[in-house]
Amino acid sequence: MAPTLEKVSSNKHYQGTLTKYKFRSAALGDLDAQFNLFLPANAAQGKVPVLVYLAGLTCTEDNGAQKGGFVRDASAEGIAILFPDTSPRGANIEGEDVDWDFGSGAGFYLNATSPKWSKHYNMLDHVTQELPQVIEAAGIPIDFSRQSIFGHSMGGHGALTLYLTSLISGVKQYRSCSAFSPICEPSAVPWGTKAFAGYLAGGVDEGKENHDASVLVGRVKGGVNVLIDYGTADNFLFQLHPEVFLKAARDAGHDEVQVRVRSQEGYDHSYYFISTFASDHVHFHANFLKA
Amino acid sequence: MAPTLEKVSSNKHYQGTLTKYKFRSAALGDLDAQFNLFLPANAAQGKVPVLVYLAGLTCTEDNGAQKGGFVRDASAEGIAILFPDTSPRGANIEGEDVDWDFGSGAGFYLNATSPKWSKHYNMLDHVTQELPQVIEAAGIPIDFSRQSIFGHSMGGHGALTLYLTSLISGVKQYRSCSAFSPICEPSAVPWGTKAFAGYLAGGVDEGKENHDASVLVGRVKGGVNVLIDYGTADNFLFQLHPEVFLKAARDAGHDEVQVRVRSQEGYDHSYYFISTFASDHVHFHANFLKA
Repeated sequence: MAPTLEKVSSNKHYQGTLTKYKFRSAALGDLDAQFNLFLPANAAQGKVPVLVYLAGLTCTEDNGAQKGGFVRDASAEGIAILFPDTSPRGANIEGEDVDWDFGSGAGFYLNATSPKWSKHYNMLDHVTQELPQVIEAAGIPIDFSRQSIFGHSMGGHGALTLYLTSLISGVKQYRSCSAFSPICEPSAVPWGTKAFAGYLAGGVDEGKENHDASVLVGRVKGGVNVLIDYGTADNFLFQLHPEVFLKAARDAGHDEVQVRVRSQEGYDHSYYFISTFASDHVHFHANFLKA
Repeated sequence: MAPTLEKVSSNKHYQGTLTKYKFRSAALGDLDAQFNLFLPANAAQGKVPVLVYLAGLTCTEDNGAQKGGFVRDASAEGIAILFPDTSPRGANIEGEDVDWDFGSGAGFYLNATSPKWSKHYNMLDHVTQELPQVIEAAGIPIDFSRQSIFGHSMGGHGALTLYLTSLISGVKQYRSCSAFSPICEPSAVPWGTKAFAGYLAGGVDEGKENHDASVLVGRVKGGVNVLIDYGTADNFLFQLHPEVFLKAARDAGHDEVQVRVRSQEGYDHSYYFISTFASDHVHFHANFLKA
């Protein structure tokens, strides 16, 4: 039986509704989980497509909803946006709240295999399986067969890896993927290696094999729809490696129509950068979600 | 001599730049004051008009910049936006940090006349005099002869009273004024009477005489350009009294072209409401700023 969704808050926003929900998450080991969901006004007339936004380190389900600048165009296009949290909360695992780039606020959108973390840190299942099931079971008018995904930084890593993994497995859960300043090669940078070493029984090797976008993109048979933006003034560029992902994509035969990686002069890692290109990303996805 | 502006941070945003500045404020009794300033890209070619955004209770210079949704259209129109703070900070006045609706974060955009507060709580001078002087002295390319003002809640009260006062005095500092869910009759509601009783030597009577938009609008000779939006689901409607302002404006002969008060079905007091109508407000002001 699906868990009950509790409405935490609800705000009318761009003619639709932004609602924060809470429920008891099985995927996260029986912890309360929250998410925001924007439903456009046209959802009253029937099911709408959905765009999943994965936020970055230290964020919650609120950052994208409040600062992303996505909803104006999503409303105009008649597309819902689902904003999950970035990790389980309150798992009470030793060390969970010590660092800002590991544990709480830093779930990395994988299923942990290290025994210490594997009961709770399963954001991959939470985002790809549990949230769609819980939302459908609640009768909320979203058509999850028309789903795309995007994200920022750690959430860009999540968007890329969840998208590519679902293509490789043949599930094709998402029609398109985009990212702002994503961690493109986590197995080779400090944020990613720390996460993989901590969450995965097989450490960085397991992460490189299963959760590294620059590796996964080489395994996709068939076309992909990927848009990436990053800023040239991003202080965290050394954590991102967009050029590695781009080379891996080109080497795998994905051309500039399938994979666009745009370098944006002078922009940084902040939501001021994200919101500037928010409209581009929403319309990119709308092309596929409404096709 | 004008104080030195220190750059706290700077982010490229919608082709322009959002910069946070700090300086030693004389108007606020020799305290550090911060503000955000968005400069559109076209400021590189010459001075640009400016829209001043006054935020509400508990806010800082960041809320409007991060959540308002104003910059996309301001950038397209080539208009700067100035985001002041909502009160002095760190004045160390007894009682300053006790309540969320008085003292820090609640300066009410007036000059205090009560001896306890009058050294520091002078947000009216800070916004109307000091910030333009400091910004001009720093050589930042803003044309303060093309200035308009808007705000939210307490900041809507500020926008209306600063605009109307400058019209009554003949200074005509602002070309147009708009507000989201403004406190329209502060001398008759809890937020306003608490502020007036505290900051003003003459208490609520002095506030009603000098700082109440529903009184001031009756004293303006000539035309006004005012747009107000409020939501019908606003839990704070009892603090706002938009209908009182509307009646006072009509009684004073200001027709629906001069004063538009729009009731927005189902919207509340939040930035989700503000951002929904942000574009309307920026374009309303652009009509006057670029005339």
